[in-house]
Amino acid sequence: MSLWMTYLQEHRQQHLDELLDFLRIPSISAVPEHADSVHEAAEWVANRMRSAGIEAVRVMPTGGHPVVYGEHLHAADGPTVLIYGHFDTQPVDPLDAWEQPPFDPVIKDNRVYARGASDNKGPMLIPILAVESLLKTAGALPLNIKFIFEGQEEIGSPQIAAFLDEHHDLFACDLVVCADGVQFDEHQPAIYLGFKGISSLQIDVRGPDADLHSGIFGGTVQNPLHALIHLLDSMRDSDGKIRVEGFYDDVQPLSAEDRSQMADVPFDEDAYKSRLGVTSLFGEPGYTTFERAWARPTIEVVGIWGGNQDGGIRAIVPAEAHARIICRLVADQEPATIIPVIESHVQRHTPTGVTATVRRLSSHAHPYLMPAEHPGIRAAHAVLKKVYGRDPHYVRLGGTLPVCAMFLDKLDAYTVMFAFGLDDELIHAPNEFWRLTNFDRGLQAYGTLLHELASYG
Amino acid sequence: MSLWMTYLQEHRQQHLDELLDFLRIPSISAVPEHADSVHEAAEWVANRMRSAGIEAVRVMPTGGHPVVYGEHLHAADGPTVLIYGHFDTQPVDPLDAWEQPPFDPVIKDNRVYARGASDNKGPMLIPILAVESLLKTAGALPLNIKFIFEGQEEIGSPQIAAFLDEHHDLFACDLVVCADGVQFDEHQPAIYLGFKGISSLQIDVRGPDADLHSGIFGGTVQNPLHALIHLLDSMRDSDGKIRVEGFYDDVQPLSAEDRSQMADVPFDEDAYKSRLGVTSLFGEPGYTTFERAWARPTIEVVGIWGGNQDGGIRAIVPAEAHARIICRLVADQEPATIIPVIESHVQRHTPTGVTATVRRLSSHAHPYLMPAEHPGIRAAHAVLKKVYGRDPHYVRLGGTLPVCAMFLDKLDAYTVMFAFGLDDELIHAPNEFWRLTNFDRGLQAYGTLLHELASYG
Repeated sequence: MSLWMTYLQEHRQQHLDELLDFLRIPSISAVPEHADSVHEAAEWVANRMRSAGIEAVRVMPTGGHPVVYGEHLHAADGPTVLIYGHFDTQPVDPLDAWEQPPFDPVIKDNRVYARGASDNKGPMLIPILAVESLLKTAGALPLNIKFIFEGQEEIGSPQIAAFLDEHHDLFACDLVVCADGVQFDEHQPAIYLGFKGISSLQIDVRGPDADLHSGIFGGTVQNPLHALIHLLDSMRDSDGKIRVEGFYDDVQPLSAEDRSQMADVPFDEDAYKSRLGVTSLFGEPGYTTFERAWARPTIEVVGIWGGNQDGGIRAIVPAEAHARIICRLVADQEPATIIPVIESHVQRHTPTGVTATVRRLSSHAHPYLMPAEHPGIRAAHAVLKKVYGRDPHYVRLGGTLPVCAMFLDKLDAYTVMFAFGLDDELIHAPNEFWRLTNFDRGLQAYGTLLHELASYG
Repeated sequence: MSLWMTYLQEHRQQHLDELLDFLRIPSISAVPEHADSVHEAAEWVANRMRSAGIEAVRVMPTGGHPVVYGEHLHAADGPTVLIYGHFDTQPVDPLDAWEQPPFDPVIKDNRVYARGASDNKGPMLIPILAVESLLKTAGALPLNIKFIFEGQEEIGSPQIAAFLDEHHDLFACDLVVCADGVQFDEHQPAIYLGFKGISSLQIDVRGPDADLHSGIFGGTVQNPLHALIHLLDSMRDSDGKIRVEGFYDDVQPLSAEDRSQMADVPFDEDAYKSRLGVTSLFGEPGYTTFERAWARPTIEVVGIWGGNQDGGIRAIVPAEAHARIICRLVADQEPATIIPVIESHVQRHTPTGVTATVRRLSSHAHPYLMPAEHPGIRAAHAVLKKVYGRDPHYVRLGGTLPVCAMFLDKLDAYTVMFAFGLDDELIHAPNEFWRLTNFDRGLQAYGTLLHELASYG
């Protein structure tokens, strides 16, 4: 066993206690009253990095929640890897659904229960401790390391793009390694190659000046609800294919290799249906469920409202009707070009007698896709195979991780997802937990990855 | 000037103050929390009838909101006329669109603003005061009068049919006169020969057990919002024709005389559009606007909701979606047969991956159509011509007045519409008002009608 591994074993209890300390800080980024706690978590991270032997550590202002930077840049010929994670957490409501207070961590059955345990405080602590184990034993790192830990991931990292622009040289690197994310399951590793982007908008349909009596005027003027329904229905075929002209134009088609990689990932349709509580699956014809979830863009109406909803029925032709839509985008679609595509569809299909307007909402992110043959992916593959004893699946995620696209855009560096959460750990729900088996496995994997990446490039 | 007219002039301020008192009672029949107020309004009406000299006045239980009865039956050889009105009101949402609290009446520009001012508290007070003016001056009436004022008109009078069955002899009459309704405009009278019926229902679409992350699961399961949208869009052609199979089966086709009577009623399309604030009209092809509004059935979505509406956008595939629908029916369609027609359409058109259920809502009424040559219509024509100085138009209304069909069914008596609201008085919307000119004109018309009907039959 390497010396650094022995170091980690000997300090396991101390590291665990430190994790519990970290989890006690209620660093909820979405709740303004918790801003001080987010800052406290930043200081905690900075201090822990300093005691690990990481250099030039500082808490940096962003205009919102701070970023923590640190570096160890003494491998003259080695590559520079930037390690990313976040120390902010999701909110905790509904609080009464928690079995213990969310910021009062408890260990049960080799799991630690607390808000932020899996997302992302446990996993982000791993690379700090892995670097410490190398520095305390070998006294040096086989490559150059920088760290960027942020405190606003759970609110969409609104200040990070401008922050990276401002500090471009400080964060310059050859590759980013992301400690935020998940493996496939407890026994099976996975490498995430892509994330969907997002574009969100609202459609407002307006008809008569005021709500009209549906008996007296019904049948003589366009009903904004019917108009909105017709408009939304025109966007999708009944079989799930998007009918908005131009929507698929920039989509990278799936290659035979992509499809074969996705087909290699085991899929249990019955388990999936029963987990979601649906009787049948549905989606764009010609694609498997994973292809639909990971690599095909969607238009989903996420909310609709208009007219009479609560209480007694009111017999009206309402003056207006509204819907919110989220488009999930795949490479190479762009949020900025999708809105006009939708807008122009809306203009072409608005029924007579009403006006319809399209309004951007705040949620926007670029899609991200990394080539499977990238050397960073090859390194991660080798390490995961060693640690898990099996080849990782190559997967993507329908969700959005805006920082990957941001690092590619701002630092011209791809991001290798190398993180040790699991997606059943209730990360945005009450009773979030993290498996401590992944604490140990993650430390071993990170220590190994730092050696593997020394020959990167 | 007759003595009764002088009486009305002398008591005008008192009657106006009494109307304001009546309007202060928030007698919203659709909202259970307001049931006591509906009852309070019933007691108010009963007391006012007693002080008018009306006899045997009582507030009668119905199983729902009460009915107020009263009579004056001393014209041995005269006909018996039953006068109808209602003291319940529509709900008041959206409350913030009101310029003053809806139950805090104000008089501006010879109009009274309040919920229920035009529909129907102002107009229903008229026959009580007209009868008072005759009793206080002549000491007798030229015919027999009964009153039936109800408190559940705005929720479709669910208990009134059974109530009339139970009290058939009490309400037996030769003719009903209805104080709920409108004239053509401020200067032109109208006689309403027909009303649409109504059938109301809710469609509930359910998909996954819980709201799903729209990124991770979107595109792989049916979105209940999209399913509902598709279902609703399938019910109507884009030109407004109903596509629900069997919906038009029982509709009385328009005769040449019907169409010619309707064509005689002046219609100013520009004025109509500008009044409603729409740029173009819309409706079933092959029919004029009046034909659509008065004599062709409709299916209107009156409310829709589901998913994410308020606050920040939540990226979900929602577990459920809902819509409320009102069908406006014409003779000889029946509410009881329309629900299964819709239900069977919903069953045939529900997209895969969700379930859709159809639920009857409480609002149901038969359509009504009265012969233009009926003697009660001739009497009303004579009075209106005298009061307005011109012949009334013969019209119908797309709105519903379930009691007309009910009186015909239960009491074997037609209903003459003789009411003094106007249809621009925002009766189901915020800022409802009533023109006080019609208070005065209505009192004169009712006093005259009671004499005219003395020779009825």
